[in-house]
Amino acid sequence: MRLFYHPEIKKISLAGVLYALGDPVRLEIVQRLAEQAELPCAALCIPIAKSTLSHHFKILRDAGVLHCRKEGTQHINSLRRQELDDRFPGLLDAVLKSAANEALDR
Amino acid sequence: MRLFYHPEIKKISLAGVLYALGDPVRLEIVQRLAEQAELPCAALCIPIAKSTLSHHFKILRDAGVLHCRKEGTQHINSLRRQELDDRFPGLLDAVLKSAANEALDR
Repeated sequence: MRLFYHPEIKKISLAGVLYALGDPVRLEIVQRLAEQAELPCAALCIPIAKSTLSHHFKILRDAGVLHCRKEGTQHINSLRRQELDDRFPGLLDAVLKSAANEALDR
Repeated sequence: MRLFYHPEIKKISLAGVLYALGDPVRLEIVQRLAEQAELPCAALCIPIAKSTLSHHFKILRDAGVLHCRKEGTQHINSLRRQELDDRFPGLLDAVLKSAANEALDR
């Protein structure tokens, strides 16, 4: 079984997290995962190439934003919310609130 | 006089702001400008090539994070703090607080 790399919480950098969140597709993934505890990649139904989506997930995982585990043939994703909140209090909440406000403006 | 492009507040995107903040040098620029109302580029004393620094300033301006005006031969920069706070309430504060916490951990 191929294991995914997940950085330790202490090694998560603010610049890395912000970079990972600084893309519309990755922001959408994070918003969806904030609404659901866990989601397989396929359930996101984001209309982009599978390889591109996998790349976005890798960036989010490497930055410490997501956790991914394998269950059979599926990749089940979840936000590392508690860890992110511990390391950068208020950051994820502010990002999610801003994303919700921006969606209302569209 | 060459004028800089500054996007209207309504055209500032969350993903664009997060991407602009998602780099250690750009985060440092924003932190320094949060402490001072205005700063010329040269006053930042960041030890990187001038052209690289100019590129970082352009990314921050284009994303709507900074305002830059020319005064003689100097470029005077300031955060578009009020506008950012209006558009994405709490976001910049959360980023600056997280950056300060991260600096303490080093």
